Amino acid sequence: MELTSYSKADLTAFYDACKADYADYQAQGLKLDMSRGKPSPKQLALSAGLLDCIRSDELVGEAGDYRNYGLLDGIPEAKRLFAPMLGVEPDEMFMFGNASLQAMYFCISNAYSHGVLGGTPWSRLEKVKFLCPVPGYDRHFKITQYFGAEMINIPTNEDGPDMDLVEQYVQDPAVKGIWCVPQYSNPSGIVYSDEVVKRFAALKPAAKDFRIFWDNAYCIHHLVDSPKTILPILAEAKKCGNEDIVYEFASTAKVTFAGAGVSMLAASKANLADLKKGLTVFTISFDKINQMRHVKFFDGKFENVLAHMEKQRAELAPKFACVLDTLAKELRPLGIGAWTEPKGGYFVSFNAPKGTAKRIVQLCKEAGVVLTGAGAAFPYGVDPDDSNIRIAPSYPEVPELQKAMDLFVLCAKMAAAEKLLEA
Amino acid sequence: MELTSYSKADLTAFYDACKADYADYQAQGLKLDMSRGKPSPKQLALSAGLLDCIRSDELVGEAGDYRNYGLLDGIPEAKRLFAPMLGVEPDEMFMFGNASLQAMYFCISNAYSHGVLGGTPWSRLEKVKFLCPVPGYDRHFKITQYFGAEMINIPTNEDGPDMDLVEQYVQDPAVKGIWCVPQYSNPSGIVYSDEVVKRFAALKPAAKDFRIFWDNAYCIHHLVDSPKTILPILAEAKKCGNEDIVYEFASTAKVTFAGAGVSMLAASKANLADLKKGLTVFTISFDKINQMRHVKFFDGKFENVLAHMEKQRAELAPKFACVLDTLAKELRPLGIGAWTEPKGGYFVSFNAPKGTAKRIVQLCKEAGVVLTGAGAAFPYGVDPDDSNIRIAPSYPEVPELQKAMDLFVLCAKMAAAEKLLEA
Repeated sequence: MELTSYSKADLTAFYDACKADYADYQAQGLKLDMSRGKPSPKQLALSAGLLDCIRSDELVGEAGDYRNYGLLDGIPEAKRLFAPMLGVEPDEMFMFGNASLQAMYFCISNAYSHGVLGGTPWSRLEKVKFLCPVPGYDRHFKITQYFGAEMINIPTNEDGPDMDLVEQYVQDPAVKGIWCVPQYSNPSGIVYSDEVVKRFAALKPAAKDFRIFWDNAYCIHHLVDSPKTILPILAEAKKCGNEDIVYEFASTAKVTFAGAGVSMLAASKANLADLKKGLTVFTISFDKINQMRHVKFFDGKFENVLAHMEKQRAELAPKFACVLDTLAKELRPLGIGAWTEPKGGYFVSFNAPKGTAKRIVQLCKEAGVVLTGAGAAFPYGVDPDDSNIRIAPSYPEVPELQKAMDLFVLCAKMAAAEKLLEA
Repeated sequence: MELTSYSKADLTAFYDACKADYADYQAQGLKLDMSRGKPSPKQLALSAGLLDCIRSDELVGEAGDYRNYGLLDGIPEAKRLFAPMLGVEPDEMFMFGNASLQAMYFCISNAYSHGVLGGTPWSRLEKVKFLCPVPGYDRHFKITQYFGAEMINIPTNEDGPDMDLVEQYVQDPAVKGIWCVPQYSNPSGIVYSDEVVKRFAALKPAAKDFRIFWDNAYCIHHLVDSPKTILPILAEAKKCGNEDIVYEFASTAKVTFAGAGVSMLAASKANLADLKKGLTVFTISFDKINQMRHVKFFDGKFENVLAHMEKQRAELAPKFACVLDTLAKELRPLGIGAWTEPKGGYFVSFNAPKGTAKRIVQLCKEAGVVLTGAGAAFPYGVDPDDSNIRIAPSYPEVPELQKAMDLFVLCAKMAAAEKLLEA
């Protein structure tokens, strides 16, 4: 029976029983941080070979001595290795530093200080607006917030952002960009449909310096055998004569080492040349040795990157199963909440009954399990429904995760019951 | 006899002889790039041990798992190792990414977009001026040029920038900063005297958000037995109650691998907290594995870093000797030019007779030796005297360098003779 159908007396009894269980959890002194999508130690161990896969004499590569200065846009060996991951040609990309977030920050920061492809610097405009499909990635929103953009929530459907709304908003010349995680969105895990990608590629915004920030962070992070993949945005945009509309980003943060991988930025040649004007002031070069380390570790073959991701999948899949099974078993019969069942990525997006997300996070915290803050997946950290919680199952091992999920569903039950009892 | 005392006929004969020699050089088909201060392959080979000095199980350090996200300001082991290099305490610094230039760019960029320690963002000011001791480092000047600062040349004396002038200029509230390379200035090689450092530390600019950009790039890059070292600027500024006035930078770019080392930013705690507001948006963390790699390679001991620099010195000292001996032997008797005799760093700064620097660089280039462009060491690339040339002896081995220097002095003779013949 769904909880909403319970009598007042049954609901009170249900809540009291939950409270007793909760007291037991509190007594256990759990201590678990599930606030970020961090790889587990076992996942990180898969890349141990990176630490000694390269010899000094292998660092004189195709384009020179990679131990020395130079090659701002990266070594050709690494570009060839990772171009297929982004669905671009090697000359349509830069290798970047240890984090794609820095590349995104640079693009936004440079747009504010110097403008995009000859446009007015955004800092000189009265108003800059950014479209933010929600729920989304908090660190994206923090960049645009830091620079003072007005962020507009765009609802996300099962096949991507609400494109009618996107197409309507881009008529406003103050709208300068949109944040997208097209494959396994953070946190909803959805995959953009071909139609959505094509509509993005064909977008005709009023602002010529509007850019799609296409963060393809999880493009090869599958959890199933025959994953649905997305159309390559840059190629699609080219077909529409619209190739300048997108910056694409990716990294090996969740392929090899989080924070010590390599990252990439793909864009049209005009965009790359424009960005290079600033990048050449920003740095002499990124870490080419780490680029070559990745080339050696994967023997220069993208199929080896994909094989490596199968090992990652073997670690992650049981954890997602644990989360989804527990939610299905404990909450579905009671009709509490709704959640995504992602086929890849790093998160499960849980939508609690309206007005209960903060309470669930608080209850979990008080029993020793730290979740991502409720609202974090929304611009300004404000979820208008106080409903969304990002569950990040990657870090703990299954037994610990099971404990955390048991607590989570208990807290979800309590919060739901409290809400109903209030009413 | 000095060239200026030659009779017209002798000068013509001298010039003709030079031209004949020059034709021989052109026939040799030299091909040598001395445009940047790049370490030589032998220098880079000294750090080969970095490539395999760390095991996976050594990456769980004092402050957690360094293979994973986190620790924006760097690992404590690396801070302790490099703090003595900057003359600061470990809690007065951040570890940064693979290049200190990125840290400098970030500080300037962030000052423009968000202001310094609560000040007005520089982008909103009508005018921002920057003091530029000359000759200086072209990449410094390019950052301030990129952001539109008006750059003001400050002459450099043997003990540092002309401090009377600096103290005078900082009375102007539009003057927001100064670029300094205090130990072995790029390119002059001078070392700031204690008095100069103390005057910097005690500076009272009209602008509260004035910052000294103290690029200590060559602080341990000595070429002599008992090098003169500089006073630690942050400690000196603290003594004056002026600790917020300076950002200090350093890196291992010329200790280990150029472009794949680690860098550092030291500043007061108030400055660090201020910068962290932006850095936390810019990135999750820098490459902590590379930080730990450096800790392991040097066994966590700063004395091992210094011992490593002795090996670097053994490579570099004969090259500097080659440059200085050739200049002394070939140009001093003729009274052509003046130059520094640095006790460390990466450059010899050559001042040709006024109006001949571009000509010398052109002549060298046409015989196959590329020097740093004349004027590069000045803001906007303009040397008002067309006199200064930065000689970078590090990259070629001595026999090749000797050839290049023989050509260089020949071109200096030709340009000097041409100038005198014109007159």
